Amino acid sequence: MRRGYFVSFEGLEGVGKTTAIACFSELLDSHEIDYVTTREPGGTETAEQIRQLVLASRDETMTDMTELLLMFAARAQNVDNIIRPALDRGQWVVSDRFTDATLAYQGYGRGLSLEWIERLAKWVHGDLWPDATILLTADRHHAEDRLGRRGAPRDRIEQERTEFFERAGRGYERLLEKHPTRFHRIDANQDLDGVSGQLERLANSMVSRWRQR
Amino acid sequence: MRRGYFVSFEGLEGVGKTTAIACFSELLDSHEIDYVTTREPGGTETAEQIRQLVLASRDETMTDMTELLLMFAARAQNVDNIIRPALDRGQWVVSDRFTDATLAYQGYGRGLSLEWIERLAKWVHGDLWPDATILLTADRHHAEDRLGRRGAPRDRIEQERTEFFERAGRGYERLLEKHPTRFHRIDANQDLDGVSGQLERLANSMVSRWRQR
Repeated sequence: MRRGYFVSFEGLEGVGKTTAIACFSELLDSHEIDYVTTREPGGTETAEQIRQLVLASRDETMTDMTELLLMFAARAQNVDNIIRPALDRGQWVVSDRFTDATLAYQGYGRGLSLEWIERLAKWVHGDLWPDATILLTADRHHAEDRLGRRGAPRDRIEQERTEFFERAGRGYERLLEKHPTRFHRIDANQDLDGVSGQLERLANSMVSRWRQR
Repeated sequence: MRRGYFVSFEGLEGVGKTTAIACFSELLDSHEIDYVTTREPGGTETAEQIRQLVLASRDETMTDMTELLLMFAARAQNVDNIIRPALDRGQWVVSDRFTDATLAYQGYGRGLSLEWIERLAKWVHGDLWPDATILLTADRHHAEDRLGRRGAPRDRIEQERTEFFERAGRGYERLLEKHPTRFHRIDANQDLDGVSGQLERLANSMVSRWRQR
């Protein structure tokens, strides 16, 4: 059986990943593609419990190392119990973030060793990486507006200072340069029609490439 | 200022670590030693939340890798927020388990790579290892009796099969052979007087060695 196709969505807080994933899922529906959606950290019962633990605000400061290890602990569950089984069954997997987010946030953002994060990634998910990664980028004020409109209180990571997100954003740019075939940028400053048009072209090309495998 | 002294207690479930640690703490009191006690996984607010997550029984199977990464995530908090600061202040640290438990349980017990666990340990706590490790060992039926008498329901790890504990127990034996100076065995099959007598001799010798530093 043809193996499924793994698509991850990446980007900073407030760039509209949730809307883009909903739009992309509808496009897969229209192509009659069988897919599962997941998110990181999260996606399974245990991984969602780890997510709550990572994102909760508390009195004690969480060390960068703890944050990193919790991200990979959740990822190990998600990879073993959701992502790999779905791909093996021939389903597509659409994930709100994957290891690129760890490289951007914990690596470039927190300053933890990129080499070490890559070694951990290799240990936790071997050669499994997304077939395609859609990176949404927006001006910071645009993303801030969106976060403000959302209304929900900000979690521990959303409360970080601007410089942290600037470093993570530069990290995403470096990852995009490093993986020009896998990464596809979508400019999230444009209106929804622009974003969905770009998503449609990407979905069409991914589906036809996958069907030719 | 003289750095503190780091003592860990190790052993399988039901060997009487809690009682031995209480006894050892009283001995330190009688020597007028300033100390903190901690436990792994746990010891801080965040690490105790990780402990709950590791030990809870749930429908989803926890992958070995997730279990390992959660252990080190909790450890990073405990090392940075409790153990190192205490040692730097000149206090002793008495810990119910440390990385040797991860080598025994997740390494020998679950079969994860010992080399990788040691690399993670190096990354998370550098050259920090206990100055002394007290390993309690008992016949399996003796430990089972004790667990049975305790009355509390068994957690996710205590529910493991006998072969798992046999592998972990052999792991502890290997660690004892590998670190004959750091490790001290206490035979937990003997009565409480025997155990406390041995603890007293160990405490006396550690305290006098430390005071001569």
